[in-house]
Amino acid sequence: MSTSTPKASRDRVRAADAALRARAANVIPGGMYGHLNVGPLPPTYPQFYERAEGARVWDVDGNEYVDLMCGFGPNILGYGHPGVEKAAAAQRVQGDTQAGPTPVMVELAELMVDRLSHADWAIFSKNGNDATGLALAVARAATGRAAVLMAENAYHGSAGWCNPNPSGYPSVERKLVHRYRYNDLASVETALQAVGEQDVAAVFVSPFRHDAGFEQELATQEFAAGVRELCDKSGAALVMDEVRAGFRMTHGDSWEQFGVAPDLSAWGKAIANGYPISATLGRGEFAAAASSIYATGSFWFQAVPMAAAVATIHALRDDGAVGAMERAGERLRRGLEAQANRHGFDIRQTGPVQMPFLTFAADAKFERAWVFSAAAADHGAIVHPRHNWFLSAAHTDDDIDAALVATDAGFEAVAQQFGRD
Amino acid sequence: MSTSTPKASRDRVRAADAALRARAANVIPGGMYGHLNVGPLPPTYPQFYERAEGARVWDVDGNEYVDLMCGFGPNILGYGHPGVEKAAAAQRVQGDTQAGPTPVMVELAELMVDRLSHADWAIFSKNGNDATGLALAVARAATGRAAVLMAENAYHGSAGWCNPNPSGYPSVERKLVHRYRYNDLASVETALQAVGEQDVAAVFVSPFRHDAGFEQELATQEFAAGVRELCDKSGAALVMDEVRAGFRMTHGDSWEQFGVAPDLSAWGKAIANGYPISATLGRGEFAAAASSIYATGSFWFQAVPMAAAVATIHALRDDGAVGAMERAGERLRRGLEAQANRHGFDIRQTGPVQMPFLTFAADAKFERAWVFSAAAADHGAIVHPRHNWFLSAAHTDDDIDAALVATDAGFEAVAQQFGRD
Repeated sequence: MSTSTPKASRDRVRAADAALRARAANVIPGGMYGHLNVGPLPPTYPQFYERAEGARVWDVDGNEYVDLMCGFGPNILGYGHPGVEKAAAAQRVQGDTQAGPTPVMVELAELMVDRLSHADWAIFSKNGNDATGLALAVARAATGRAAVLMAENAYHGSAGWCNPNPSGYPSVERKLVHRYRYNDLASVETALQAVGEQDVAAVFVSPFRHDAGFEQELATQEFAAGVRELCDKSGAALVMDEVRAGFRMTHGDSWEQFGVAPDLSAWGKAIANGYPISATLGRGEFAAAASSIYATGSFWFQAVPMAAAVATIHALRDDGAVGAMERAGERLRRGLEAQANRHGFDIRQTGPVQMPFLTFAADAKFERAWVFSAAAADHGAIVHPRHNWFLSAAHTDDDIDAALVATDAGFEAVAQQFGRD
Repeated sequence: MSTSTPKASRDRVRAADAALRARAANVIPGGMYGHLNVGPLPPTYPQFYERAEGARVWDVDGNEYVDLMCGFGPNILGYGHPGVEKAAAAQRVQGDTQAGPTPVMVELAELMVDRLSHADWAIFSKNGNDATGLALAVARAATGRAAVLMAENAYHGSAGWCNPNPSGYPSVERKLVHRYRYNDLASVETALQAVGEQDVAAVFVSPFRHDAGFEQELATQEFAAGVRELCDKSGAALVMDEVRAGFRMTHGDSWEQFGVAPDLSAWGKAIANGYPISATLGRGEFAAAASSIYATGSFWFQAVPMAAAVATIHALRDDGAVGAMERAGERLRRGLEAQANRHGFDIRQTGPVQMPFLTFAADAKFERAWVFSAAAADHGAIVHPRHNWFLSAAHTDDDIDAALVATDAGFEAVAQQFGRD
C-alpha cells in the first residue's frame, strides 16, 4: 500500500490524457459518455486512468491520486483486494462464461439470501439497470399493475423508465412513473392517491437520499415504517434500491436498523468489489412472479464475478469493512470540518461518513464545489462537486491524510476565488 | 486440447447436478432462469458446469461434452483462448473497474470503427440488451420518432420493448413495436405504411433469420438492398443486430457481402470471447444523437473485457477464425447429412454452417428434435432442439467427429421412438 502524498499541481503533466481525449473525440460520441465522462468537470480531472491499487489510482500521465470516488462505488474493499482476486483467479482457471451456470451461482444465491433478511431468492444480472428494471418487472408481474412511484431527483439507473435525461426514450414509459419527496410520508400518500393506489405496482426507495446535486439525507424511522405501511395497505411492492449504498452501511439490508424489510431489492456496484454483477432479490411471495419473467443476458451466468461476489461478501463481514469505512470516513469528516473552520467556510457534510458529501453554504450552483474539487484533483484527491463520494475499507489513515492535503488546497482555492464566508 | 470421445449414457452419473438443482430450487425462482435454464429441455442436459476448455465442457459430475452451443455464442475462439487470456491478464494487473476509462477503451473503439465499414463511433456497454436498446434510443433521438419495426419472431433481447414474453413489461412499450416478415420486402413496406413512415424511428434486422423455433434463412440481396432503400426513403434508421451472428460470418459487417451498410449496429456475445462487453456503433450522422443520451452503467468502462475484445478481434482475423468455423461446420453438416441418410431421415440443415441448425421433416412440435438432442446430450454433445447452434474456431476435426458419435446416437433414438421417414 502506498503511503505517499501525491504530487501537487505544479509537477503534473497531462499530455497522455490530452492525446487520448483527442483520439476518443474521433471514435466515441462526445468524446466520452456516462457518469465517468469528465467533460462536465474541471480540466484538472484526468479522463483516462492507467492503474489502481488499494485506495490509490494513477492517471495515464503517471499522476497519483487518493480516490475518494471508488469508481462511483464498485471499489469497496480496495482495488485488487487479494482475497477477491484469489477467488476470482481460482474460478477463472475452471471457466467463466461457460455452457451454463456453475456451482458458485447457487453458493452466491444462498449467501445473499442468508445475509439479507428480506430475501428468499436471487436473480443475477450485470448492470444496476438490470437489477432495478427486473425488480420493477417482478412487481408489475406480481401485482398486474403498471404505475411506479419514485422520489423526486432519485436515480435508479439509465433505463428508459427512470433515465434522468429523456433523450432517446419514449414518453409512454415515463408517464407510468410518479414522484414523491424523500422522507415526506404525506407526499407518498398523496402520490398513491393521485395515481390510484390500486394501480401502483411498486414504490422505489433508496436507503437514504443520495441524489446528485443535493445534500444527502438519512431516512427517518417514521418514513421507513410509513412507506412499508402504505405499501402493505395499497398492495404495491416496496422496492429497495441498494445499488449505490448496499453493504456500505451494514452487512445486511440497509433498513434493518429500522426493522423495515422491502419486498424486493436491487444490488450492484460493490457486491463483487468491481467485478460485473448485479442482483435482484425478493420475498418468497414474489418468486412465482419472478419466474414468470424471461430475464436473461449472455453474460449473466459468468462464474468469475459470482466467485468474486462470494469472496467480497465474506470479506466485508470477516474484515469488518463497514467499521473500517466508518473510521476512515470519520477521520475525513473531522479533517474537512477542521479545514473549513480554519479557512473560514460554512460547509455541510451529509450522509453516512463512508459515503461523504461536502457542500458549501450559499453555493446553489455548486460554483465553490467546482473550484474546491478542481483544486483537490490537482493536488491528488479525486472527489466530485455534485455527487456523493465513496470510501472503501482500504482507505488507511495515510490515505485520508494525503487526501486532506489535497482538500486543504481545495479550500484555499475557494478562498482565493470567492473569499471566505 | 482433448481429442477423446465423451463417454456415453450408460457410464454417466448426474448426482452432483441433481443436488445443485435441488439447492437452486430453494433460492432461484423456478430453479433457474433465462436462456441457460435447461428446465424446458430433456433431463439428460446438465444444468451446472464445472469446467470449459477449447470446444469441450465438463458438467459438475465430470461428464465431458463437445459443446456445439458455445454458451449461445460468446465462445468463438475456444474457451480459455491463450491470446485472449494473456491480454486480459496483462490488463487485470493494471486494473479493471477503475476510477475511469483506460487507454484500451480508445484502442477498442478505433479497432471496431476500422473493421466495420459503416461505423464512425462506438459506445460500449455490458449486455446485448444494452446495445440493442441504445441503438433504438439513438435512432429515436436522431429522428424524433418513437415507432420501431422488427421481424416476426425475431429476438433482439429481453428488454421490455422486445421481450418475447410480455410478463412484467407494460404494453405501452410494445405498442410502439410493429412487425414485418424476414426476407419479405413488401411486408416491410406495408408495415411502414401502416404505422406511418414518418413515425418510424428504426427498422431492426438481423444478418440472417435465426429465430428460435424456425428454420434459419439467409438474407437475400434483394431484401438487404430493399430494406436499405426503404429506410433511406422513410428516414428510419436501419439497425443491424449483430449480437448473435457478429464476427461469425465475416470479420466485418455481416451485410458487407451485399454492399449494404446499416446506420447503427449492436454487438455483444462473441466480441470478447466470453468477457462481458457489448457495443453500439453507428454512422457519423448519428453521433450527435448518441451523445445526447445519458448512457451508462457501473461496469461499462471495465478495462479487462475491452483488452479481451481487442485481442479477440485481432485473433479472429489473424487466425482465420471464420475459415476455421466454416471448415468445422462443413464437416459437421456433411456428417449429419450422411447420418440422416443412413438412418433414413428427411432433415433440413439451415443457416451458415458455422451457426448450424437441424430440423426434422414433419416435426412441427420439435418432438423428434427433442429426442435427438436428448440422446446427443446423453452421448456427449450439447446441441439444442429449437435454437441454432454455434461453432467456434477451436472445434477440431476430432471434436466434430466426437460430436458426430453423439448425433448418431441421436438419430438412432429418434428412429427407435418415431420410426424412420
